[in-house]
Amino acid sequence: MNNDEIAALLKKYAAEVDEHIEKVLPKQDNIYGNYLNEPAWYYISAGGKRIRPTLCLLTANALGISTEKAMPYAVATELVHNFLIIHDDIMDEDTIRRGQPTIHVKYGLANGINVGDYLLFKAYRSVFNSKFPKEVVNKLIDIITLTCERTGEGQALDVNLRATEDFTVDKYLTIATLKTGYYLSFSIVGACAMAGMSDSLIEKMWKNGSNMGAAFQIKDDIIDLTPGKGRQIGGEIRTGTPTILYARALEVSNPAEKKKLVEITKKPKEETTDEDVNWVIELYNKYGVINWCQNYASNLVKEAQQLLDEMPFEKKDVLKDIFRYMAERVV
Amino acid sequence: MNNDEIAALLKKYAAEVDEHIEKVLPKQDNIYGNYLNEPAWYYISAGGKRIRPTLCLLTANALGISTEKAMPYAVATELVHNFLIIHDDIMDEDTIRRGQPTIHVKYGLANGINVGDYLLFKAYRSVFNSKFPKEVVNKLIDIITLTCERTGEGQALDVNLRATEDFTVDKYLTIATLKTGYYLSFSIVGACAMAGMSDSLIEKMWKNGSNMGAAFQIKDDIIDLTPGKGRQIGGEIRTGTPTILYARALEVSNPAEKKKLVEITKKPKEETTDEDVNWVIELYNKYGVINWCQNYASNLVKEAQQLLDEMPFEKKDVLKDIFRYMAERVV
Repeated sequence: MNNDEIAALLKKYAAEVDEHIEKVLPKQDNIYGNYLNEPAWYYISAGGKRIRPTLCLLTANALGISTEKAMPYAVATELVHNFLIIHDDIMDEDTIRRGQPTIHVKYGLANGINVGDYLLFKAYRSVFNSKFPKEVVNKLIDIITLTCERTGEGQALDVNLRATEDFTVDKYLTIATLKTGYYLSFSIVGACAMAGMSDSLIEKMWKNGSNMGAAFQIKDDIIDLTPGKGRQIGGEIRTGTPTILYARALEVSNPAEKKKLVEITKKPKEETTDEDVNWVIELYNKYGVINWCQNYASNLVKEAQQLLDEMPFEKKDVLKDIFRYMAERVV
Repeated sequence: MNNDEIAALLKKYAAEVDEHIEKVLPKQDNIYGNYLNEPAWYYISAGGKRIRPTLCLLTANALGISTEKAMPYAVATELVHNFLIIHDDIMDEDTIRRGQPTIHVKYGLANGINVGDYLLFKAYRSVFNSKFPKEVVNKLIDIITLTCERTGEGQALDVNLRATEDFTVDKYLTIATLKTGYYLSFSIVGACAMAGMSDSLIEKMWKNGSNMGAAFQIKDDIIDLTPGKGRQIGGEIRTGTPTILYARALEVSNPAEKKKLVEITKKPKEETTDEDVNWVIELYNKYGVINWCQNYASNLVKEAQQLLDEMPFEKKDVLKDIFRYMAERVV
């Protein structure tokens, strides 16, 4: 499939998913007002590509499971996604998402937290509504729970870990895998579980998504240094966020440079000058850090595609096309 | 059993539960620091009576299920409890719990939200660790999910619904049941599910806890007007919280009184004077509202005990004693 065909396919699946979200989360509350479902729909209605449910349905179809059977879990992945972004926006104190105020800005902190929680429970509820045997239902709920445990562990590191002198590329990859890897894979892994795939194959699919997730994170770090993306260049240098660029630079620079790099990164945001940021970017250029990271991400994506090659799918061409489509947007 | 024996029994169970929480939630993180499990243990270590896991274990034992088998679910009820109080404290902007700063005050908002979420996932994880057949595990997870859905619905009403002229005792009871009833019953209901009890009997146990939960809420409303409890009298009149006292007074007062009651309750907190509060309390006294509410709570507790009488437990004396013990603390 070419990119236009893939885009059309994503759109078709997204429309079907939207219809089914309403089955577990009606747009109207029925008791004493509309305090819950209206804010719950606020993010869902605002857009989003429904990438997780689509990956789930495509994988399920490739494995011979109908869209109808797979849909309740596909819906669950989208609800988990919305739970996570709602709580994330509060934790990061973000005020804008998809061009409109974030949920806690519009409805207040208490509603933001409560609605986020509620979407998660509706995700579990959606899985209970599926027609699979109890054993498969348990497996799917286990997958959602594992995903949320790992994402929470990654979030804890992300919130608390600042750039220090002993930060490494390995630590970076651990955080990236925990924070975004599981949460990308679980849509595909769920479909594999529905098809009764073995644990060792499922393990490969976790790894696959974890590679893609890390690649996305690395892309984000690089974008932070790319002009013309609508944000201030070097924001993560100013906030002292431990990026892969920082980790790699620590590993290759000389002791004096390393010392200065750590000093600048540890400075409070408001004390970091433009000269500081420029010095760090020059250091990155001197050691080819950005290229190295870009190659690293490319290799992660290649590895993910190889893992997919090894999977016993009957019809995996569509899925491979989607992975290529996603990968082009990553590296 | 007399009250001292009950207190000793509660203490014995609590110690056993604490030991088992560590199996699903170790006190130390193992990756790059201690950013997650230390704050997760902050509330758990600070005390609490472990009333939910104890009710679960007592019920399970009364139904012939060993403490060992029931423990993973009992632990889950305590973890869900901690998830709910952490998020509740943030939503209510409370700064002190059990004599120490609330979690978001001590560790920051982001960690508060994330740790709350994490405890919930560990609750689900604990259930997966249990030795029950898949069908029972499925049922237990469903019970936790239902409890959290209903509690979230109650929380949404509690956060958003202010005292208006059309508030009723019925609405009050709906909120109280949603917000605290399920969340009290689910420890007992889980034990009934482990024992393979029929859906209609389980329904009775939900009702049982819902009565006790509503009775607790009513007690809380009455305490708000009781001197010597270490808080400002009439706090809920000042904040415009729709209490059962307010609902009952609306139903029995004359049109002029009703109008003034609504006006005072709708006033912003800082504009509500001591005279306003005293006027409302006098209105409550004039119509015997406090007594009426006290009787209402007593009847709810009696009904809960009757429901228990109808249950096919072999040895329910201990459980009945605990209910009496709890009830004495309610009315």
